[in-house]
Amino acid sequence: MRVTVLGGGVIGLSAAWYAARDGYAVRLVDLGSPHGGSWVAGGMLAPITEAWPGDEDVLALGVESLELWPEFARSLGVALGPAGTLAVAVDRADVEVLDQLRAYLDRMGRSAQRLTGRELRALEPGLGAVLGGLSVPGDVAVDNRALLRALRGACAAAGVDFAEGPAGDTDVTVIAAGAWSRDLHPALRDVIRPVKGEILRLSARPGALPPPRHTIRAHVRGRPVYLVPRDDGFVLGATQYEAGFDGDVTVGGVRDLLRDAEVVWPGVAEYGLAEAAAGFRAGSPDNAPVIAWLEPGVLAATGHHRNGLLLAPVTARRVLDLLREGGHGR
Amino acid sequence: MRVTVLGGGVIGLSAAWYAARDGYAVRLVDLGSPHGGSWVAGGMLAPITEAWPGDEDVLALGVESLELWPEFARSLGVALGPAGTLAVAVDRADVEVLDQLRAYLDRMGRSAQRLTGRELRALEPGLGAVLGGLSVPGDVAVDNRALLRALRGACAAAGVDFAEGPAGDTDVTVIAAGAWSRDLHPALRDVIRPVKGEILRLSARPGALPPPRHTIRAHVRGRPVYLVPRDDGFVLGATQYEAGFDGDVTVGGVRDLLRDAEVVWPGVAEYGLAEAAAGFRAGSPDNAPVIAWLEPGVLAATGHHRNGLLLAPVTARRVLDLLREGGHGR
Repeated sequence: MRVTVLGGGVIGLSAAWYAARDGYAVRLVDLGSPHGGSWVAGGMLAPITEAWPGDEDVLALGVESLELWPEFARSLGVALGPAGTLAVAVDRADVEVLDQLRAYLDRMGRSAQRLTGRELRALEPGLGAVLGGLSVPGDVAVDNRALLRALRGACAAAGVDFAEGPAGDTDVTVIAAGAWSRDLHPALRDVIRPVKGEILRLSARPGALPPPRHTIRAHVRGRPVYLVPRDDGFVLGATQYEAGFDGDVTVGGVRDLLRDAEVVWPGVAEYGLAEAAAGFRAGSPDNAPVIAWLEPGVLAATGHHRNGLLLAPVTARRVLDLLREGGHGR
Repeated sequence: MRVTVLGGGVIGLSAAWYAARDGYAVRLVDLGSPHGGSWVAGGMLAPITEAWPGDEDVLALGVESLELWPEFARSLGVALGPAGTLAVAVDRADVEVLDQLRAYLDRMGRSAQRLTGRELRALEPGLGAVLGGLSVPGDVAVDNRALLRALRGACAAAGVDFAEGPAGDTDVTVIAAGAWSRDLHPALRDVIRPVKGEILRLSARPGALPPPRHTIRAHVRGRPVYLVPRDDGFVLGATQYEAGFDGDVTVGGVRDLLRDAEVVWPGVAEYGLAEAAAGFRAGSPDNAPVIAWLEPGVLAATGHHRNGLLLAPVTARRVLDLLREGGHGR
């Protein structure tokens, strides 16, 4: 059976790879935007520190997918790192937010370890004046661009045909084009929306503090900020705007990211600014992805919002289950 | 006579153009760095607002060159703009600095008009809380990248041979490689040094305030900052470091530029960050350029520091005079 996947981000590539390995004749059409959500990303695989009351479905799906990640990464030859996530508080309001998160996680049967500012600085000496925080060793990260390269290689090795233009004949179309999916089927028009985010890629310079060993997350004056380590620096993210497909990196966004990062990790000032980029997450009304048949022959795998990388293995597996079940007959 | 120009920035191109138009057989070797001082620049042609006690030679040379600029620009088909320069003060210390500058200019027979904060905001409604400043209508600016393109075109039209590699036989070598000149002749080794500077290129976005009409200069907490308008935004500069050939754009530099620009012109936050770049000015001990024979057959035109664009026409003319006088016999 011929399957055409629309979308060359982490969801489209993962679904194409799983389907091709399962014997389907897969063609993948990459829309080629430089603003794809999995290209412009930090790479956190962090269901626990992303958890929030009301999003229980997302937490459960994220935890399920995180359990698939070690095998997924091993098959692709990519490394998982770093040594877990530290969620830190820089003021009293943040301490309360983290206390709420910890209480919620306790109720959900997920635990996170509370640490004092002193304990946090013992783990990460570069931290600024933090009052306390949570340690979540299981919330890890992946180099998202290395992952995308590995997935393209794995797809090619499994026989996926990378098409330049629109597809020819196909039995099933899988819409996995992130935020752009909204324009590819009427049923997605009012469900999927672009949620713009800006990130900075920072590189360690001679004399600068080495990158942190953990992913570090915080809220500074209510704005979320994260530092995700790479071998030679880190990814600093992310702003969040509901402003359509505006791909500009804004001065205000960069200013806020740098200001907030410097509160959390003052050594950032000595880093090099290697890249500033804006991407679009695929937002959905309930923050959960849409992985379902839209009509015979058309399947959606989109709406992953902030969790596309995390949810890639579980999404690819579900897409494969849906293909096997059928329901796509023409 | 065969002339080889080493350096494809504004000084090398201008000298090559003048020499080729005068009948010399000119070959130009572009070293091809993305960090050239005239590529990474605001494009100010501003001898008056750059003036400072002790640098009288630079002021005189700058004023002489500025007088050549209208004809230079016309021959190249590039526009001069914008409507002069405003040097503004954001605190009491700045007011004193501008008063000193104005008194010095008076003594030098150059006048600058003093304006109140209210008068400044009438000229530029986007200004922040400025206490006062100076208006210097004669200090203009040029789009440096449009200028470099026009100069390359003019050189090609005049028969300049753009060489890829090192030159072959030549009668005269003109060392016009900016900061890199120090490595091209022993006599320049201890005279020319790289002075790193970072700039940001910002683009107006829908809903943002249009760019200022004047070049705006200020000192914020002692750090110089300038906004040089372009059609679709402005160039924001510039940091200054004595740190060798380190071409990284630093987080601290970007943070300072954005923070200082926002004090002077708050609307900057709504702009897009189109580019962040680092370049090297060619510093010299007395801030004045070296335009002279170094030995028979080798001529230097370097050390223009912050004034390379301004001084291009007068430098090209002096190089041509030196070539005509001879003194290069082999």
